[in-house]
Amino acid sequence: MPNQNDIRPAAAVRPEDKRVINGQTDINQLAPFRYPWAWKYFLNANRNHWTPLEINMAQDVHDYHHRLSAAERHVYENVLAYLTTSDILAMRNIGLAVMEKMCAPELQIYQARQVYEEALHTWAYQHCIETLGLDQSEIYNRYRTVPAIHAKIRIASTRLESIMRPDIDLRDREALQTFVMAYVFFAAVFEGCWFYNGFSPIFALQRRGLMKGTAEQLQYILRDEILHCGFGIRVVRQILEEESVRLDPLALAAMWEEAEAAESEYARFLLPTPILGYSAEAHVEQFRFIANRRARQLGVSEPFPGAQNVLPWLDEQANLRKEKNFFETRVTEYQTGGTLSWD
Amino acid sequence: MPNQNDIRPAAAVRPEDKRVINGQTDINQLAPFRYPWAWKYFLNANRNHWTPLEINMAQDVHDYHHRLSAAERHVYENVLAYLTTSDILAMRNIGLAVMEKMCAPELQIYQARQVYEEALHTWAYQHCIETLGLDQSEIYNRYRTVPAIHAKIRIASTRLESIMRPDIDLRDREALQTFVMAYVFFAAVFEGCWFYNGFSPIFALQRRGLMKGTAEQLQYILRDEILHCGFGIRVVRQILEEESVRLDPLALAAMWEEAEAAESEYARFLLPTPILGYSAEAHVEQFRFIANRRARQLGVSEPFPGAQNVLPWLDEQANLRKEKNFFETRVTEYQTGGTLSWD
Repeated sequence: MPNQNDIRPAAAVRPEDKRVINGQTDINQLAPFRYPWAWKYFLNANRNHWTPLEINMAQDVHDYHHRLSAAERHVYENVLAYLTTSDILAMRNIGLAVMEKMCAPELQIYQARQVYEEALHTWAYQHCIETLGLDQSEIYNRYRTVPAIHAKIRIASTRLESIMRPDIDLRDREALQTFVMAYVFFAAVFEGCWFYNGFSPIFALQRRGLMKGTAEQLQYILRDEILHCGFGIRVVRQILEEESVRLDPLALAAMWEEAEAAESEYARFLLPTPILGYSAEAHVEQFRFIANRRARQLGVSEPFPGAQNVLPWLDEQANLRKEKNFFETRVTEYQTGGTLSWD
Repeated sequence: MPNQNDIRPAAAVRPEDKRVINGQTDINQLAPFRYPWAWKYFLNANRNHWTPLEINMAQDVHDYHHRLSAAERHVYENVLAYLTTSDILAMRNIGLAVMEKMCAPELQIYQARQVYEEALHTWAYQHCIETLGLDQSEIYNRYRTVPAIHAKIRIASTRLESIMRPDIDLRDREALQTFVMAYVFFAAVFEGCWFYNGFSPIFALQRRGLMKGTAEQLQYILRDEILHCGFGIRVVRQILEEESVRLDPLALAAMWEEAEAAESEYARFLLPTPILGYSAEAHVEQFRFIANRRARQLGVSEPFPGAQNVLPWLDEQANLRKEKNFFETRVTEYQTGGTLSWD
């Protein structure tokens, strides 16, 4: 990588010389933009500002202790245990492994917001765990004691390790493939599928009037994650074009297969028997359906042809504006902007 | 550094085993906290949320074109040119060089917010530059064409480079000293002095009813920077204690001397002749006064004994709540919290 701290009097940066990776232009000059879409992502993300403290959790405390069945509490706790470790990993992925490799400041700017949003999500989970009086140490450690959670985190952690090597040089074609595949994994699988329908078991409770505060937190988080996924896929496509590389179909197939196997194991652990309105089978089928969508966004073939949209309400849940009663429960000033582009 | 991605079933993290750097505990488990003050910084920072779009800039456009003298426009443009490059550097310092070395997630969580705030500041400057119709390429390139700005950025950039070496190992005492001195520089000089009174020339205009929108943006930024400085100094003191190191008085003296020389050159360039209510001499004396404050916070001797508080209104400007009319110009919902600890 060229020394981007090299400061010398020179002509202003020409936007057409900027590149996503392997760039040579001055990283300290924001404008003019080459990637105005990245700046728009940043502006949109700022319109979505919220904090966990704004959402009333009082009814959740009651629900958790008095209305949830043992099977439902099992679902709730393990979803939180999975999510909280996942979002710390997501923060470290963008903050420590991805952002440093970006060569245009308008990309780093959105990723700076993304890093923060992951921290905000971690706060939201912590707020739920604390409010309900769960054993924090035990919950945070669960990804190391529950094999089905461990397996998903291990897959992500291995991807993260593969691109945090300090000597990685993206001019090397093999290193570039490793980096692109890790980015595809984090954007399309980790954020785009595992987070996306990672929230749905809680939304299933919400649809029955249970744990509505937690669900509201997760709706905000889901909105962020959809933007992260969209941005990540956009960056990947830009890299493919600029660097003249193609995604390896075999590597993609292996990625989807591994992700589906881990998700199936997780779903069986979470839901050994269905809870009212939600089953392990529906969870995994929905994973496949969303995975196909991410593949189309990436411009590659669907990994699970024919997968059905068995939880059609999930997409509605993702779109906050369709939830008529949603904004009534909180101040709405943060959402100052016009239309957000959704999934 | 130990492999923090190593995931194995194990006992939960004991907070007393956490360390700021050179730690061995699982980085994926947020709670229990060892550094509850870091978590409080994070919560406080979130209470300060704002965006540049909320501040009315209409009068600034008029002021800039019709009311500022040539000397005042020179001050205004170069302050913005310095700040905008500085905040991109500050973002990269925390996001790429510091955060990765932290071994407790509660520290990384605040730094994730800090990285975002630097991006938010960059947006604020960009918003000013764009609204006033300044030549963006020319402004962003100015740190490479104006020697007095170049010199300050070069000092920061050299510190940043010294700790972005991929092979840095903080168990090595010399590497540790380099890292700690870079952290001291960024917290106490770059954010704590150069940003702190980097805004004051604009505040001097504001006090005469000029460029009040820009000044309001900078008041928000200043509030963030004071928290960054406070957090950074707190982290440094924690490292000194945990790693049993002392700051080298000669290295500190050299740092202050270099910072003062660069600040003097910058002030002379900015203000070859005084503008009404503000001079180069006052600017540099105020730098010395604030530098002494940072030294006391660090627990080291004052570098400029006897320096005078020649701009006593600057501290009042830093404390938004003392500005009676300030909140009348914007929505106040973001500031939801109780007391913030100030400088």
